[in-house]
Amino acid sequence: MNAKLPVEANTAHVDDIDRAIISVLHQNGRISYTDLAKEVELSRVAVQARINAMIENGTIERFTCVVNPEKLGITVSAFFNVEVEPQYLMQAADTLADEPEVTSLYHMTGPSKLHMHGLFRNNQEMESFLQNKLYALPGITSVDCQILIKRYKSRMGMKL
Amino acid sequence: MNAKLPVEANTAHVDDIDRAIISVLHQNGRISYTDLAKEVELSRVAVQARINAMIENGTIERFTCVVNPEKLGITVSAFFNVEVEPQYLMQAADTLADEPEVTSLYHMTGPSKLHMHGLFRNNQEMESFLQNKLYALPGITSVDCQILIKRYKSRMGMKL
Amino acid sequence: MNAKLPVEANTAHVDDIDRAIISVLHQNGRISYTDLAKEVELSRVAVQARINAMIENGTIERFTCVVNPEKLGITVSAFFNVEVEPQYLMQAADTLADEPEVTSLYHMTGPSKLHMHGLFRNNQEMESFLQNKLYALPGITSVDCQILIKRYKSRMGMKL
Amino acid sequence: MNAKLPVEANTAHVDDIDRAIISVLHQNGRISYTDLAKEVELSRVAVQARINAMIENGTIERFTCVVNPEKLGITVSAFFNVEVEPQYLMQAADTLADEPEVTSLYHMTGPSKLHMHGLFRNNQEMESFLQNKLYALPGITSVDCQILIKRYKSRMGMKL
Amino acid sequence: MNAKLPVEANTAHVDDIDRAIISVLHQNGRISYTDLAKEVELSRVAVQARINAMIENGTIERFTCVVNPEKLGITVSAFFNVEVEPQYLMQAADTLADEPEVTSLYHMTGPSKLHMHGLFRNNQEMESFLQNKLYALPGITSVDCQILIKRYKSRMGMKL
Amino acid sequence: MNAKLPVEANTAHVDDIDRAIISVLHQNGRISYTDLAKEVELSRVAVQARINAMIENGTIERFTCVVNPEKLGITVSAFFNVEVEPQYLMQAADTLADEPEVTSLYHMTGPSKLHMHGLFRNNQEMESFLQNKLYALPGITSVDCQILIKRYKSRMGMKL
Amino acid sequence: MNAKLPVEANTAHVDDIDRAIISVLHQNGRISYTDLAKEVELSRVAVQARINAMIENGTIERFTCVVNPEKLGITVSAFFNVEVEPQYLMQAADTLADEPEVTSLYHMTGPSKLHMHGLFRNNQEMESFLQNKLYALPGITSVDCQILIKRYKSRMGMKL
Amino acid sequence: MNAKLPVEANTAHVDDIDRAIISVLHQNGRISYTDLAKEVELSRVAVQARINAMIENGTIERFTCVVNPEKLGITVSAFFNVEVEPQYLMQAADTLADEPEVTSLYHMTGPSKLHMHGLFRNNQEMESFLQNKLYALPGITSVDCQILIKRYKSRMGMKL
Repeated sequence: MNAKLPVEANTAHVDDIDRAIISVLHQNGRISYTDLAKEVELSRVAVQARINAMIENGTIERFTCVVNPEKLGITVSAFFNVEVEPQYLMQAADTLADEPEVTSLYHMTGPSKLHMHGLFRNNQEMESFLQNKLYALPGITSVDCQILIKRYKSRMGMKL
Repeated sequence: MNAKLPVEANTAHVDDIDRAIISVLHQNGRISYTDLAKEVELSRVAVQARINAMIENGTIERFTCVVNPEKLGITVSAFFNVEVEPQYLMQAADTLADEPEVTSLYHMTGPSKLHMHGLFRNNQEMESFLQNKLYALPGITSVDCQILIKRYKSRMGMKL
Repeated sequence: MNAKLPVEANTAHVDDIDRAIISVLHQNGRISYTDLAKEVELSRVAVQARINAMIENGTIERFTCVVNPEKLGITVSAFFNVEVEPQYLMQAADTLADEPEVTSLYHMTGPSKLHMHGLFRNNQEMESFLQNKLYALPGITSVDCQILIKRYKSRMGMKL
Repeated sequence: MNAKLPVEANTAHVDDIDRAIISVLHQNGRISYTDLAKEVELSRVAVQARINAMIENGTIERFTCVVNPEKLGITVSAFFNVEVEPQYLMQAADTLADEPEVTSLYHMTGPSKLHMHGLFRNNQEMESFLQNKLYALPGITSVDCQILIKRYKSRMGMKL
Repeated sequence: MNAKLPVEANTAHVDDIDRAIISVLHQNGRISYTDLAKEVELSRVAVQARINAMIENGTIERFTCVVNPEKLGITVSAFFNVEVEPQYLMQAADTLADEPEVTSLYHMTGPSKLHMHGLFRNNQEMESFLQNKLYALPGITSVDCQILIKRYKSRMGMKL
Repeated sequence: MNAKLPVEANTAHVDDIDRAIISVLHQNGRISYTDLAKEVELSRVAVQARINAMIENGTIERFTCVVNPEKLGITVSAFFNVEVEPQYLMQAADTLADEPEVTSLYHMTGPSKLHMHGLFRNNQEMESFLQNKLYALPGITSVDCQILIKRYKSRMGMKL
Repeated sequence: MNAKLPVEANTAHVDDIDRAIISVLHQNGRISYTDLAKEVELSRVAVQARINAMIENGTIERFTCVVNPEKLGITVSAFFNVEVEPQYLMQAADTLADEPEVTSLYHMTGPSKLHMHGLFRNNQEMESFLQNKLYALPGITSVDCQILIKRYKSRMGMKL
Repeated sequence: MNAKLPVEANTAHVDDIDRAIISVLHQNGRISYTDLAKEVELSRVAVQARINAMIENGTIERFTCVVNPEKLGITVSAFFNVEVEPQYLMQAADTLADEPEVTSLYHMTGPSKLHMHGLFRNNQEMESFLQNKLYALPGITSVDCQILIKRYKSRMGMKL
C-alpha cells in the first residue's frame, strides 16, 4: 500500500450500513436511536456504536439545525471573489475566517484568490462589512461581490 | 403597514431567547431538551414550545448532521458557473436541482446564469457528470468549473 | 459653413443668460417666473419668452419632480448589460424601452450591446422581470445584472 | 413589528392618490395646483397638503427641469468603471461626487468599485477630466470608460 | 537554400542604400529624383533604377498622401473586435474588407476573430454602419467597439 | 456660430474638387501636377494652388511611400494593450511614442490605457523590446500583446 | 481497502530503486543496461526485469527522442482555448486528437472547454489549420490562440 | 544569404531520410541501430552518422523515457498563468524554471506574463507550492491556476 497517498489517509472505512445511518440522520438529525435502529434494521446498541465510531473518526462532524436566514432578517446572501496580494493571502484568510458574517471561505482553482460566502441583514450591513472589515485588510487589491437573487437548491451535507 | 413588502412577510418574530436556542442547537443539534433548557434558563416545556413554533413558522427548517465529505471518498468539491440560453434557464435549473451531485444551485447577480456547487468522488466522476448530465441539457452554452483547493472555513447555517 | 456636421445641427444658440435660467430651474423647477426673473435680473416677460424659446427648440424637454424610489418601496436599482444577437438588437431595444421597469436604455461603445437601468420593488420582482420579460425576448443571449449597493451622487440633468 | 428592518424605515405611507399626484407632477412639474387638483379629483388645498407632506417626508426630493445635453453642446456621455485601492475608496468617491462633470456615482455589486456617469463637451474635455482629475486621485488603479452611441430611452424618475 | 521557409521567400535583397532611399521617400514621397539622388549620394539614374526595382519586387507598394481625417469631417476613429461563427469568418472578412468605412482588417492571435479599424463622420454614422452593415452579416455573434480619445503617435509605414 | 465647438475648429473647408484631388493623390502620390490636373479637369495652376492650400491648413499632412514590411525582414506585427498606473500614463505615452518600433499609440475608450501597434523583425526582437523598453518604464502594470496572423485589408489614409 | 478509489487503482508499486532507474533513463533514454546497472548499483538482469515490469504496468509508456522543433522548421508553437457547444465536445476532441499538428489536448477546469497545443511551420500554416480544420468542425463557437514568444523551460516527463 | 534572419540561423539542413530516422526514434527511442537501419533502408554506419550529426547540430536534443505520472502518484496536473510586475519578470522566470514541480514555463502572447505547467502529488502539495514558492516570489501580483480533468492527447515531440 502506498502510504503517501493523502486521499487514502483521509478516507474512513464507511460501509453501506453506515451510509444508511448517515442518510437517515441527514434527513432528521434529532431522530431517536430507537427509531433510527428500526429504519436501518439494526439493534439500538449497534446503531449507537456505529454513530460514535463515525463521530470519533471524523466522518460525522456534528449535529446541527438548518435555519432559514430570511426568517432571522438576513436578506442578503453574497458571494465574494477576493483578490489579495500573495504575501498577505494567509493572513487575510485567517482574519476573514473569524468574521461572523463569513459563512464559508475557500481557496479555489481559477483566477481569484479567495472565494467567500457571507450573510447580511441588508445592503447597508454588507457595505459596512466591505468598507470597515474587508477593504481595511492589508493586501486586498480587488473584490467582486455578487448577490443571490433566487435559491433553487441548497442542500447541506452531501450525496451518499 | 405596507403589506406589499416581501421582506416583512418572510420575517418571523424571533426574539433574543429564540436566537439563544437556535445558537445552542446550531452547535449541538441532538442536545436534549432538558440540557438545552438549562443553557437558556427556561423550562423544558417552554423551550420545546418555542422550538415547535420555530419549526412551524419555518425558522428552523430541519435538524441534520454535518458529514466530512472526504471521509466518504468525496475528494472533489467544485463550483460551476453555468450559462444557459435564457429560454431554457428554468428547465435547466429544475433538472440540475434534482441531481444528487448538485448540493446548491442559485441565480446570482453578475454575468453567469446559474451558480452551482457539486461534490464528486474524483475527477472522472466529475467529468462524467459534465459529459452525461450537464452538457446533455438543452440550452447549455458554456460551463466554468473551479475546484476547491483548500477550505479555510465552512459554517453551515448562519450568524445569529 | 459645413451643414453636414450633425453636432452643429443639434446645438441651440444658448447664451449665458439662458444657462443662468436653466441653472435656477434645475434647482427649483416650480419657481415662479417673478422670482426667477429677479434671480437672473431680467424682466418677467423676457424670462418667460426665453423659457418658451428653450422649450420650443428642445433645450428644455420638460419639467418634472425628483422622487426618492425607496420611499415608494423600490428597493432594487439595477444595471444590466444585455447581449443580443445582432439581427434582433433593434427589436429588443424597442420592446425593452416600453417596459415600465426600464428607466434608461443605451447603446454604448464596448463589448455589450445594450446598457439598461431598471428599478424594482425587490429581488423577486427583478427575477420575474428577468424570467418573464427579458429572457423571453427573441435573440437575448446573455445578461449581466449588477445591483446598486450605495448611491454617492445622482444628479438629474447636467452641468451647465 | 421588527424595527431593525431598514426597508421599513425608509418607506413612507404613500397611497394611491399620492401616486396619482406624483404621476402627474412627473409628466409636468410646473402644473398649477388647480389643474393638478382637477386631474386627481381632489380639492386644491388637499393636493397642496399632500405635496407638502411628500416633500417633508422626502418622497418628493425636488422639482427640476429636464435639459437636452446636446443642445448645450454636451456631445459626450460616458460611463466609467473606476477601480480604486480599497483604502482610498471613500476618499475617491467623495472627491468625484463633487466634480461638476460627474452626474452619478454608485457602489455596485460586481467587480468594479465605483460606477460613474459623466457628461462632457467633447473627447478633449473628457480626456482632460481623466488626466487632470480622475487619474490624479490617490489610489486609482484602473478606469474603464465607455461612450454612449445611441440613447433608446432615458426616463428620469421611476415607475409608480 | 531552404525553399520551404516562407520568410525567406517574402524577403527581398534590400541593402543599406535601398533603406536610405526608402527613408527619404517615407518622409517626402514627392521629392524629385534629382534631390533624392543628392541625399543618398548616387546618380539620378541609379536612384530611379533602384526605386523601379523596389516597386517591381513589391518592397515599395505605392506612393500616397497622408490626410488628416478630422479636416475632412471624420471625427470618430474606432477599433472593433468582431466575433464571427467560424464557418462564416472568411465570408465576413471578405465583405467587411470591401466596406469604405473599414480602413484595416486583421486576423490576430487572441480571443477575437477579426480586428478592424474604421473611420466615421460621427457616432450616428458609426451606429448606422453597425446596424446596417456589420450586424446584418450572417454569423456575427458579438462586436466590441472602442473609440479613439487621443492620438499620441500614428506613423504610416515602419521603422527601417 | 458657436465657436466653442472643437469639431468646427478642426474642420477645413474641403469641397468636392479637393476631395477628388486627394483621392487621386491617395492612389498615386507621385503623379505629376499635369496628369492630376487632367484627371480632375482643372488647370495645373489651380490644382497646385489647392494642394498648397490643403498642405497649409493641414488637410494633407505629407506625401509618403507605402512599404511592404515583410520585404524588409519585418515579420512580426503586434498590437499591445498597455496598462499604466494613471500618474505615469503621460510619461509612458511620451517615451513610447519616441520608440522606432512603435508605429501608432492611442488613448482609447475601454479598459486599457494605451493601445499601441509595433513592428519587429521577429519574436526575439519583440521580446527584447518588451523586456528592455516597455517593462522598464515606471508605472507599467500589465501588457497584453497580440500578433497579426493574416492581413485582410490595410488601407492607409481614409474614405473620402 | 476501498477499491473504489481510482487513484489507488492507477498507482503502481514504484519503489526508490525504480525511481532511480527512471531518473537515469529520463536523462539518457538510450543508456545501455550495463551502464544503467552500474549507476543504480544493481545487476544488469535485475535492472532489465524492473524496466520490463514498469513497461508492463504502464509506468514507463515508451522511449523516445526529444527534437528541437525550430531545427525542423517549426517556428510557431501555439496554445488554443477552444470553446465547443457541449453536445459536440467529445466529437471535436476525438477529431482534433487525430490531427498531426495537435501535440496535446486536455479538458481543464476553468471556462474553456478544450486546451490544445499545436506546432506549425509558420503563421500561414497555423491560419490554414484554423480555417480548414478547426473552424470547420461542427459546434466550434470560439477559439483563443496565443503564440509562444520565449521558452524558459520545457521538461518532458516529470519530477520524481 | 540574409544572415539577419534568425529563422534561417536556427534551421538545420534536415532531409527526408533524417525525418524518417527521427520518426522511428520518436516511436522507439531504444531501437538498435541495426533495426533502425533496416527500417530506413540505410547502412548501420550511415544511420549512426546521421544521428550523431543531428545530436551535434541540436536537432535531436536527447533520448528519454515517457512516464505515466499517475503511476508515480502524481495526480494533479495544472496550468498556471502568472502575472508578475514587469521589472521582476525575468527574475521570477529564472527562479520558477529551477523548481522541480515546474515542467514547462513560457512567455506567450496575450495578457498573461508567464504560462507555466506543473505536476503535483495532490492538491495539498500544489497549495504548498503556491503558498511557499510561487506567492513568496517578489513581484507576483496574480495567479490563475487550472487543473487537468481529462487528457485526450499528449504527444511528446512533434509532427515531422
